[in-house]
Amino acid sequence: MRITGVKLKERMSVDELVRELRGCAFGARRLAVAVDIYEEMLERDAVKFLGLAGALVPAGLRGVIAGMLREGFVDVLVTTGANIVHDIIEALGGRHYLMTLDVDSIDDNALRTQGANRIYDVLVRDEDFVRLEEFVRGVLEELAANGRLKKPISIKELLTAFGERLDDENSILRTAVENGVPVFCPAFADSMLGLHASLFRQTSPLVIDAIVDMHELINLCYDAKLAGVIILGGGVPKNFIFQAMLLSPKGGYDYVIQITTDTPHAGGLSGATPDEAKSWGKVKSGAKSVVVYSDATIALPIIIAALKERRRKDEQRVWRHE
Amino acid sequence: MRITGVKLKERMSVDELVRELRGCAFGARRLAVAVDIYEEMLERDAVKFLGLAGALVPAGLRGVIAGMLREGFVDVLVTTGANIVHDIIEALGGRHYLMTLDVDSIDDNALRTQGANRIYDVLVRDEDFVRLEEFVRGVLEELAANGRLKKPISIKELLTAFGERLDDENSILRTAVENGVPVFCPAFADSMLGLHASLFRQTSPLVIDAIVDMHELINLCYDAKLAGVIILGGGVPKNFIFQAMLLSPKGGYDYVIQITTDTPHAGGLSGATPDEAKSWGKVKSGAKSVVVYSDATIALPIIIAALKERRRKDEQRVWRHE
Amino acid sequence: MRITGVKLKERMSVDELVRELRGCAFGARRLAVAVDIYEEMLERDAVKFLGLAGALVPAGLRGVIAGMLREGFVDVLVTTGANIVHDIIEALGGRHYLMTLDVDSIDDNALRTQGANRIYDVLVRDEDFVRLEEFVRGVLEELAANGRLKKPISIKELLTAFGERLDDENSILRTAVENGVPVFCPAFADSMLGLHASLFRQTSPLVIDAIVDMHELINLCYDAKLAGVIILGGGVPKNFIFQAMLLSPKGGYDYVIQITTDTPHAGGLSGATPDEAKSWGKVKSGAKSVVVYSDATIALPIIIAALKERRRKDEQRVWRHE
Amino acid sequence: MRITGVKLKERMSVDELVRELRGCAFGARRLAVAVDIYEEMLERDAVKFLGLAGALVPAGLRGVIAGMLREGFVDVLVTTGANIVHDIIEALGGRHYLMTLDVDSIDDNALRTQGANRIYDVLVRDEDFVRLEEFVRGVLEELAANGRLKKPISIKELLTAFGERLDDENSILRTAVENGVPVFCPAFADSMLGLHASLFRQTSPLVIDAIVDMHELINLCYDAKLAGVIILGGGVPKNFIFQAMLLSPKGGYDYVIQITTDTPHAGGLSGATPDEAKSWGKVKSGAKSVVVYSDATIALPIIIAALKERRRKDEQRVWRHE
Repeated sequence: MRITGVKLKERMSVDELVRELRGCAFGARRLAVAVDIYEEMLERDAVKFLGLAGALVPAGLRGVIAGMLREGFVDVLVTTGANIVHDIIEALGGRHYLMTLDVDSIDDNALRTQGANRIYDVLVRDEDFVRLEEFVRGVLEELAANGRLKKPISIKELLTAFGERLDDENSILRTAVENGVPVFCPAFADSMLGLHASLFRQTSPLVIDAIVDMHELINLCYDAKLAGVIILGGGVPKNFIFQAMLLSPKGGYDYVIQITTDTPHAGGLSGATPDEAKSWGKVKSGAKSVVVYSDATIALPIIIAALKERRRKDEQRVWRHE
Repeated sequence: MRITGVKLKERMSVDELVRELRGCAFGARRLAVAVDIYEEMLERDAVKFLGLAGALVPAGLRGVIAGMLREGFVDVLVTTGANIVHDIIEALGGRHYLMTLDVDSIDDNALRTQGANRIYDVLVRDEDFVRLEEFVRGVLEELAANGRLKKPISIKELLTAFGERLDDENSILRTAVENGVPVFCPAFADSMLGLHASLFRQTSPLVIDAIVDMHELINLCYDAKLAGVIILGGGVPKNFIFQAMLLSPKGGYDYVIQITTDTPHAGGLSGATPDEAKSWGKVKSGAKSVVVYSDATIALPIIIAALKERRRKDEQRVWRHE
Repeated sequence: MRITGVKLKERMSVDELVRELRGCAFGARRLAVAVDIYEEMLERDAVKFLGLAGALVPAGLRGVIAGMLREGFVDVLVTTGANIVHDIIEALGGRHYLMTLDVDSIDDNALRTQGANRIYDVLVRDEDFVRLEEFVRGVLEELAANGRLKKPISIKELLTAFGERLDDENSILRTAVENGVPVFCPAFADSMLGLHASLFRQTSPLVIDAIVDMHELINLCYDAKLAGVIILGGGVPKNFIFQAMLLSPKGGYDYVIQITTDTPHAGGLSGATPDEAKSWGKVKSGAKSVVVYSDATIALPIIIAALKERRRKDEQRVWRHE
Repeated sequence: MRITGVKLKERMSVDELVRELRGCAFGARRLAVAVDIYEEMLERDAVKFLGLAGALVPAGLRGVIAGMLREGFVDVLVTTGANIVHDIIEALGGRHYLMTLDVDSIDDNALRTQGANRIYDVLVRDEDFVRLEEFVRGVLEELAANGRLKKPISIKELLTAFGERLDDENSILRTAVENGVPVFCPAFADSMLGLHASLFRQTSPLVIDAIVDMHELINLCYDAKLAGVIILGGGVPKNFIFQAMLLSPKGGYDYVIQITTDTPHAGGLSGATPDEAKSWGKVKSGAKSVVVYSDATIALPIIIAALKERRRKDEQRVWRHE
């Protein structure tokens, strides 16, 4: 195929631009291919697994991700604990703030004394973590009062309990619960949620089951006729989603989109190619896959904006034909 | 400032999306700031220096860059030789092709025997380089016949001669010549243009002056009341643009936008921060600057599409007020 | 301090080279500083936390890491499940193999049909995972028979049970158990160990407690007069080690060495600077810290070889003075 | 081949460690392979081209590189101008200084007012650039007085003139001249040397020929029975060395070692794989090649220290057999 390049015109829509990027190479092409693969996943009704790693909620992608859950772009969510932590903080009225772009000039010791915590160019206050702690404790006390903590509780069940108690339609967790999207968080302990649960446990009975959720995730993989995965960042969510496919007779995922800043040659799982995953049977031999080497805060909004536009046209087309 | 995050809506324009990215952190924010800085450069009529490194023309950004020159987004161009080479190849009717996205599966030895050359996922044929050679030789013979090669010729003059003989409105070089944008290529020797010039020189007198163009570039820096730089990739163009500012009493560029995949900690100039350049007097103390850590094939079309949209609104606003 | 540069001489020892790197900048300097900080941690008897992420065991660092545990370089280990999985595979007689360095030429679909699994340029066979499965099942059955699984078991206790049953002095897990180094694995579910435990659970009672180990880790942080952390890669182990310090009145770790290929500007925790961690109180205001931007397979063997050499000289010095 | 991993022992030599790294994967293996390929280049007497990009001299590798030239590790040098600039500065008694490792805390505006210039964590003073200017001007005046500037001068000839006037055995340029290693600097204009030459030219006749040196480099490629390339960083030197091979009937370099922090997927030439270069005929089909993804300040001293050790053993072996 000839490289036709990008033609820019007046007031292009995001999808018009993405379609132009199809005629480019390197990263632009990868971005355009990601949209096309995602579109096919949606059209062919593949079960869509979203893996969420990296500080995407603090960075401002919370609304985009909640929207993905609400509008049927995601069927299963696997996330780091941190993204849930910051989602709850926002839902409780806490805030994230933009610091100076000149990150190097920030005095982290001064922040410490001011009760402010930094995530690259994002600031979050100690007081918002205090609210989080109260919320977690409150939910756990409620569950204990209901007798629910007399036996081990799964991470998924606990997250559902949190989500049900959040009153914020932009919340990822709330939206997942409302839309029946199961949320898995295998490294739950490695988050402020885990830390507060651990503190609660020192005075009250609480056993959080580390592995029971896997059975459900494995079944979701097993039952999917077509399965696709969208990986943001990599990390534990990526591996956990892939690992759950190992017991399926399918032979692997049919679609893979990964948005990452990691590279294959470092040897870690986060940067490993979809091809490597084929040797494990995590990705199917003929799968459609693409890695977009990009900061997810740039690539994800573009991909989802383009898909929303395409879907709207589809709806209009259906409507006109009726 | 609070992180408001991205709100996606139906059929967003590129600039609407970019404006939403202002409420994000990390790379998304950097991209949005880059558009704002570029807009200010345009509004305040800063002299705009564009540094071009990396295989951007083969990757499909030729039209975007030519458009930038045509529409006043660039006043001075400093480029690698390779981008000019591939621009001329296209102008002469040669083509670049997209190869499979599964770059790892490509057999480069087979390509070799087929007369095909690879640039990551882009293919360009030997025969198109033959055309380039004929063109370069033809221009040099014409210049020799006109007596122009009796004395040393500058790289800029030679590039202008090439550009004048290209009949392609999408050509970067042609567009630069037509729009009076000077083109500097300090590492001219390091390109197929340099190679063919070297071959020509073995039978005919030809001296290409390596340094004479610097005087003009230095004067452009010296005379600019406000000066901004847009750096794609880094490399020699970045350093050459910065170096030319050292003799100016201005104290450095007023605006810096760099789009790069390099990192500061590697220590090279390509990844060096605008702050570091302040210590040299290449960037002004209070300059507005941003580094977008991204593949330029993704970031540049977005930035330019957004700017075109903003400028159109400005024009409409002016028109309505008249 | 003046940059004196590296002076190479005939048959240098590793530490002699590292001492020369002190006179360099960029990455070389960072590597040399890492050795000096680690040496100080050892001399001042800081409690040393090692965070292990990335496929370091498959890549061949198993012996180096086991040696670190044996020789007192590490007091607490926090690891991904995958590194334990591959450690056990080796201890059970399984093997990892080097594939061609020309990774791009590997046919992953062919590997799949041959029962071989790829980790970048490393191959591991399905049959070795079968052995692992039998081992895990065997240990769980033994624990069940002993009545140990009637109540929830902690991840650490389970790993200890595994380690006690390995007969391989080069095993990380075995060496940790023998030397009293506690092993934490917060994302245990996200590994083949977790997967096999999940399968076992479908027929037998098994509850693995996700959070109980945190109490011990928090106490280790709390009790440490001086505390240092060596982070390989980043990921969950990095965050888990840092998070455990949040409840300590110490105000953070006194020493931080991170070896990573991640960058700060991606915004993720893996690439976050030790400075950022100061704002959270995870790293002390005046802490000694360094990030070595390097593949850990290169940097770690150099650092440990240099430290062994320094320690030997210390021992000899002590001996001579007695 | 089985992964045997690294076995560390007491007081290992650098080469003993490198030999252990052969049993590892990922970056460690690549480093070990680089040493083996370089050793073969030396043993089989390949013509060795060294490409030098990145601030390696400021970072402290000057002595290592000069040693490589002196001891026959390099036959042809292609470099950025900046490395020559900083080599001359040191030779004239100027100095580079290590700044704080906490690079983010440096105030670049303050440095500016103090006459200090920053290169990541390296400082160099304005006064040392003044000395450089005087030196360049002095040499040019001498050449003018001798009538040498009446006709165009080549970059290589000019660099030779500089080198002959340096009195410092650790100088790269001086060592190159003394040992008959030709030095090419295709982007000469893009350096302080170019800048000062440009200033000289405003008052005195001076034409520096941009392309004449290519003929010699092409001939060196043409005449080499076996040819190998060691690329530090990438950039113009990498492309220039590769490009010169295009006219040779050899079909490309026989050996390629690249040490870089760039990645293939960015699409630029600096990160392009040796495989890609095979499609162009720059690297031979069956060439031995390796890319070490590493900061050159770490990898290069290790590689050269290991090679010195191997060569010494060879010499001793020869001596014993005589």
